[in-house]
Amino acid sequence: MAIEIRDPIHGTIPLSSGETAVVDSAEFQRLRAIKQLGFADISFPGATHTRFLHSLGVCHLAGEVFDHLFKVFPFSNISVRQRFRQVFRLAAMLHDVGHGPLSHTTEEVMPPLQDLKIGLYSQLRATKPDAETRATHEDYTIKYLTDSPLSDVLKANFSDISPVHIACLIDKSLKSPDDFFMDKGMDFRPILSQLVSGELDCDRMDYLERDSFFTGTNYGKFDRDWMISNLIPHMVDGKYYLGLNRRALYTFDDFLISRHHIHLMVYFHHKCIVYEEMLNRYLTSADCDFRLPSSIADYTKYNDFRLYEHLAASPNQWAQRIALKKPYKMFAEFHTTAENTRPEKLRDTLQAQGIDVIWASSKVRLSKYHSSTPEDRAYPIYVIDQYDRWDVPTPIDQTTEIFQKYEAARIIDRLYVDADHHAKAQEVMATVR
Amino acid sequence: MAIEIRDPIHGTIPLSSGETAVVDSAEFQRLRAIKQLGFADISFPGATHTRFLHSLGVCHLAGEVFDHLFKVFPFSNISVRQRFRQVFRLAAMLHDVGHGPLSHTTEEVMPPLQDLKIGLYSQLRATKPDAETRATHEDYTIKYLTDSPLSDVLKANFSDISPVHIACLIDKSLKSPDDFFMDKGMDFRPILSQLVSGELDCDRMDYLERDSFFTGTNYGKFDRDWMISNLIPHMVDGKYYLGLNRRALYTFDDFLISRHHIHLMVYFHHKCIVYEEMLNRYLTSADCDFRLPSSIADYTKYNDFRLYEHLAASPNQWAQRIALKKPYKMFAEFHTTAENTRPEKLRDTLQAQGIDVIWASSKVRLSKYHSSTPEDRAYPIYVIDQYDRWDVPTPIDQTTEIFQKYEAARIIDRLYVDADHHAKAQEVMATVR
Amino acid sequence: MAIEIRDPIHGTIPLSSGETAVVDSAEFQRLRAIKQLGFADISFPGATHTRFLHSLGVCHLAGEVFDHLFKVFPFSNISVRQRFRQVFRLAAMLHDVGHGPLSHTTEEVMPPLQDLKIGLYSQLRATKPDAETRATHEDYTIKYLTDSPLSDVLKANFSDISPVHIACLIDKSLKSPDDFFMDKGMDFRPILSQLVSGELDCDRMDYLERDSFFTGTNYGKFDRDWMISNLIPHMVDGKYYLGLNRRALYTFDDFLISRHHIHLMVYFHHKCIVYEEMLNRYLTSADCDFRLPSSIADYTKYNDFRLYEHLAASPNQWAQRIALKKPYKMFAEFHTTAENTRPEKLRDTLQAQGIDVIWASSKVRLSKYHSSTPEDRAYPIYVIDQYDRWDVPTPIDQTTEIFQKYEAARIIDRLYVDADHHAKAQEVMATVR
Amino acid sequence: MAIEIRDPIHGTIPLSSGETAVVDSAEFQRLRAIKQLGFADISFPGATHTRFLHSLGVCHLAGEVFDHLFKVFPFSNISVRQRFRQVFRLAAMLHDVGHGPLSHTTEEVMPPLQDLKIGLYSQLRATKPDAETRATHEDYTIKYLTDSPLSDVLKANFSDISPVHIACLIDKSLKSPDDFFMDKGMDFRPILSQLVSGELDCDRMDYLERDSFFTGTNYGKFDRDWMISNLIPHMVDGKYYLGLNRRALYTFDDFLISRHHIHLMVYFHHKCIVYEEMLNRYLTSADCDFRLPSSIADYTKYNDFRLYEHLAASPNQWAQRIALKKPYKMFAEFHTTAENTRPEKLRDTLQAQGIDVIWASSKVRLSKYHSSTPEDRAYPIYVIDQYDRWDVPTPIDQTTEIFQKYEAARIIDRLYVDADHHAKAQEVMATVR
Repeated sequence: MAIEIRDPIHGTIPLSSGETAVVDSAEFQRLRAIKQLGFADISFPGATHTRFLHSLGVCHLAGEVFDHLFKVFPFSNISVRQRFRQVFRLAAMLHDVGHGPLSHTTEEVMPPLQDLKIGLYSQLRATKPDAETRATHEDYTIKYLTDSPLSDVLKANFSDISPVHIACLIDKSLKSPDDFFMDKGMDFRPILSQLVSGELDCDRMDYLERDSFFTGTNYGKFDRDWMISNLIPHMVDGKYYLGLNRRALYTFDDFLISRHHIHLMVYFHHKCIVYEEMLNRYLTSADCDFRLPSSIADYTKYNDFRLYEHLAASPNQWAQRIALKKPYKMFAEFHTTAENTRPEKLRDTLQAQGIDVIWASSKVRLSKYHSSTPEDRAYPIYVIDQYDRWDVPTPIDQTTEIFQKYEAARIIDRLYVDADHHAKAQEVMATVR
Repeated sequence: MAIEIRDPIHGTIPLSSGETAVVDSAEFQRLRAIKQLGFADISFPGATHTRFLHSLGVCHLAGEVFDHLFKVFPFSNISVRQRFRQVFRLAAMLHDVGHGPLSHTTEEVMPPLQDLKIGLYSQLRATKPDAETRATHEDYTIKYLTDSPLSDVLKANFSDISPVHIACLIDKSLKSPDDFFMDKGMDFRPILSQLVSGELDCDRMDYLERDSFFTGTNYGKFDRDWMISNLIPHMVDGKYYLGLNRRALYTFDDFLISRHHIHLMVYFHHKCIVYEEMLNRYLTSADCDFRLPSSIADYTKYNDFRLYEHLAASPNQWAQRIALKKPYKMFAEFHTTAENTRPEKLRDTLQAQGIDVIWASSKVRLSKYHSSTPEDRAYPIYVIDQYDRWDVPTPIDQTTEIFQKYEAARIIDRLYVDADHHAKAQEVMATVR
Repeated sequence: MAIEIRDPIHGTIPLSSGETAVVDSAEFQRLRAIKQLGFADISFPGATHTRFLHSLGVCHLAGEVFDHLFKVFPFSNISVRQRFRQVFRLAAMLHDVGHGPLSHTTEEVMPPLQDLKIGLYSQLRATKPDAETRATHEDYTIKYLTDSPLSDVLKANFSDISPVHIACLIDKSLKSPDDFFMDKGMDFRPILSQLVSGELDCDRMDYLERDSFFTGTNYGKFDRDWMISNLIPHMVDGKYYLGLNRRALYTFDDFLISRHHIHLMVYFHHKCIVYEEMLNRYLTSADCDFRLPSSIADYTKYNDFRLYEHLAASPNQWAQRIALKKPYKMFAEFHTTAENTRPEKLRDTLQAQGIDVIWASSKVRLSKYHSSTPEDRAYPIYVIDQYDRWDVPTPIDQTTEIFQKYEAARIIDRLYVDADHHAKAQEVMATVR
Repeated sequence: MAIEIRDPIHGTIPLSSGETAVVDSAEFQRLRAIKQLGFADISFPGATHTRFLHSLGVCHLAGEVFDHLFKVFPFSNISVRQRFRQVFRLAAMLHDVGHGPLSHTTEEVMPPLQDLKIGLYSQLRATKPDAETRATHEDYTIKYLTDSPLSDVLKANFSDISPVHIACLIDKSLKSPDDFFMDKGMDFRPILSQLVSGELDCDRMDYLERDSFFTGTNYGKFDRDWMISNLIPHMVDGKYYLGLNRRALYTFDDFLISRHHIHLMVYFHHKCIVYEEMLNRYLTSADCDFRLPSSIADYTKYNDFRLYEHLAASPNQWAQRIALKKPYKMFAEFHTTAENTRPEKLRDTLQAQGIDVIWASSKVRLSKYHSSTPEDRAYPIYVIDQYDRWDVPTPIDQTTEIFQKYEAARIIDRLYVDADHHAKAQEVMATVR
């Protein structure tokens, strides 16, 4: 049965009956108990929104973006159009399905990748992981898609799409097993992949607006309508890439900077950071007995609720601090774009006096262009001028100056101590330059 | 330390250092893990907002309402003004602190009231409960205020206010132990009580807007600014009651109807209702071992997370249906203002065929005036005409016609069966009038 | 050239190249200088929005509503679908094109209808107006559509639609000249007409939300997404009417009451009303030389700017009061549902003392059902239950109780005097019951 | 009488009775007929908001900013506090009162400054204008404040403030005539001036959010609450300047970039620009008879309505193009940070072929720091670190890197021709590099 989901961001989100079956699976429902922003609700208490609704939002945007991009595009026939649209929506919906509880910090207690036994990797990936490689949430996503009850739901509901094709749009390192993404000799995988995961993808378009809304800040607002209206499919050497009409180039700048500022002001809020540090201390403690299972059936039971209940029951001091909301307190904060020796000096001075210090260093760059993988670089966004035939479509990092302007990473160093030592730490700080 | 909390509804909420200490208590932090709308996020996935932020919102509105009402009011001195404002903000902030996990349904497993050992009741209440009376969340609230670590935080931070005074604003049945609420021989308890809990209180003013925002619907929107600007303190026989300038009377009508419609469309959504029914079936099952403790220290550990983890671990079929999101499915829905025999006939017919049916009947009235306690009736809202001296201030239920218009309760009957029996149930329905 | 218009209510509004040609006509551009709410910006200074953007919004909603209603509807072929959608969008866009300057008050100075020489009326209307009948803004709309440069733009850009068909959707009293609205023997004119002008039309759906937004009040908010998702085409005797799924019936109630309350609180604001009264006094003054022309080419030059400039230049006291924003001031306001003799007594008493009084009586009913024309009654909205085959689709006024609840008209009487007489008027009021 | 104004941006704006008298003056009411964004409603039809409501919004923000800044500040007494707050609110409210019709383009037809006969300038300004200096809208503002019926309203309603003091907060070049801005030997004029007009002033804080709202774009959104909470008065050498807590430094960056992007995407929209160019062509035509009067009483009659009516009545081709909305059409657009010879070449080539071209070059810099007057530079904003005593408060341009990053001005060159020549112009463009 087709249903409609109500979302404060996108209004009514319609889902087909096949998509509804996916949403109803235990694997996808698990995302209802995984908050989108981990510990951010500590500082921004409205931010209790979940990866469940975010994932539906990304799926919805994927449909909207596809319809704009290919409104009048001459695919061979309607079924090609529908197939591409559907695989894109599913990849968008499921890109986060393997996410661990609370935040990326729990990747610390994921098992070795080889324990997940992901058959697809041996077939479609060039490189093999070594025995020590730890699984990531992306690996769980691929596992869910290709070897779990969710795979069966996908196969039962989408006869012309295989879970592998969905996986190919989420993981750029997988080889396409067939010509699924081809039409009239042209390859549509690059543009669809870019929109699932790239500098200007549906994931970001959803979460920036959503995180702004639920935190009650304005950093992530950007001009989504104008951006989407100005996306263009652009062909180079038989492959379609994402193109952007030049008249939306400042909109793109604004989008990147919005993302940069929401990172600095929300995701890097000093309270969120200290909770992540405390969780890390717990997960790496000798007495920590919280481990994420390699069995995908078991993994489905692990969510924020279970982790919070685990922490509440543990005698470990870091678990208790999280459970009882008694964090270490910040006494120093430094913003730089370069190395800074003062945090280390401060920490050492205090520790020499027997005061335990958490030193957290958070680093963000404006863009994936500054830190991208070979796969990302292989899929550029092209800027296209509609007025001027002399203006050749050019990769976006050669068109806007924003990447040069924000080339340097932004580093925020913070030092925290127990509330009882806060006054002492401030004193010490006044003496150490 | 005074802090500021960011809220998507009210913007920045400033808290004094004393209030911050209250917010930092484990008792108040517990509300972070209790969703405002219980199961409503099943149908409206944005509605994951918590009683924590709602409580802060009510406190903030209390401050705003107080400042408007008494802007130029000649209290004896500034400390009286501050005392009244502070006790009102604290009552607003703490009115829900005893709320049970998830929804009112868990009151089913609360202990006998006498086990809570609330000393205050024997001193300040006229009537005594009998041995069978079960505790409610309001009782836990009074317990928290007057006999828990939270009481100590209150006493330590507010030297001129006793927790009993806060309790008096939350529970109208408690006798005032002293002249705390008196100034210049006039009693301010009625108006402050009404604004903590009444037809037009800060609780409703916050949750209507908040629930609209997080669900993404528009039902709860009303003209808050205009309403607050038109509140007036009105004295009758030495007591101050809430007054409303007549020019905001339609705003009041709109407010009541907004509340009525959000009840019908959101709180009574058929999916929320079936989850509550299933939870009730679990909690009343012979094999249910979930009980809320009478020890207030233990109670602080009970929140939505714990209940969800409990359900996930229970073999009981209703617990599992909730945990795995496999609810019974609605096949019939009737809206009436009168008794309707068809639901019962339908249920009996199906059960005679061995099909289990959940029959849920939800009833809402426009207003507390239709179902109010003697205490509520003792505190009327007065409507005041600013132009016409012949127009005597009159209780609001004699001024607007809205109460007559909506006198009848609205009843929604729904019938649900297991998804496997849904087709059969529809067939039966087609034969039973 | 197809264009996109940015609207704070609907986001991006795409227009086809034919529609763009209509929008670019001088006749449609004229609406840029006619405010949607006449004098409402006096009290709500944000409300400077125009009939231009409102008309585009209604057109946009028409497309959305059509696509929902007929998503999977089996029209004979795609060109029928496109023809119906297009004529509906054009009627929606042009429904207000003949509106006079500022507010309905200027209809006072419109010429006799026969001077407009609307050929269509003699062909397609049963009844003939007599010589005294004054033209209304609806007549100018029909004139624009069928006999003006705008008609030529329509004919040049829409080969399969005649302006008469657009007129038929705006004016229910016109006979259809051909079988344009028929497909497979069924008549689609009723449902399309209802959505252009009816109890639940695109006009209202746009202006309620828009007026709320620009005034900064919340009265007109309703749950548009849910309403539109629940519209259904319903056939009776070979004609399609608008149907509403029962599950959106409270949404409909909320919509009607929202409209009622925005009327009472915004459109009937006492300052707007006195400006309309003063304009009426000017337009009916002996020395008034402002007349609306019967020539459609001249009429195109008449907008709010021209009227305001005319008023600024006139020596008439009412014109000057409007121009200089020196209105009479209200001293009495009465809200009733029945006749009230006190306003008249007050006025007479003051006028006997030589004090001029403006007495304005504003009356609103909840719904067109209470005051509808035979044409409106001929096109009912049907309520359809999706669960229960025993529940026969029924006209909405027999399904919801809202019409009975709000049967009585709401009357607001106000009395205004010059600011210099305000104190005196208040004194008199205190003596007259 | 104190009143409340409803604003969609700030909610209810309360005004004292003195402020209400100012708002009711014909001089201030004139702003109701001057749109905030000139021609921007051509492209963004929602943007019909006026300088009237903007001015009230700035006044309201001024009150909020003052209350945050000086919440616990130990002024000598309450009347000093009230005086500073009041003069600041009045300067904020009246900063734009002299604005000409439509846009800055009409400054072209302002009279010589000396015709305005502004007595204050000779007393309080060091430099004298020469005979050719043309008046600007700022000069009309000073004239209104100090020598018009508005001056009398100010004097009548604010006994402890002279219009000159208000003027001193708007025009930094005026010498203070007395010690009005001094308290306890410290000078508060710098900080108040900065907040009326500076890099981070109430004017910008209002218009960014307001213009975003009414245009329906997101460029101007910034985190206002956080910014205001982090403003600090900072004393240097006996003068108070505006300080900003370092933790809001990214908020400041976001604010500046928001402003930069709303400039590029909204204020510099190619359609707004061509209308301004056409207005300029009209105003500089030999047959133009539109002149702004030097008499302040006459000037009060000049608003957008009068200019639009004038244009509609003029036979001049540029006036007619504006009146009938028949603009030249853009065929080329170039974005650079450096000089570009191609626009000139294109224009010359076309004009050689007898085709008239409008070439518009729009230039924006991120910040006033890049182009500031000596007065602006004399009033720096200081950044203050709350954690680190080693961190000396430093002018903001030495703290954030944003000014360096955006040092280069952004230039947009556009070329427009009559619609009939558009195809030809595009052809030529394809041949000229």
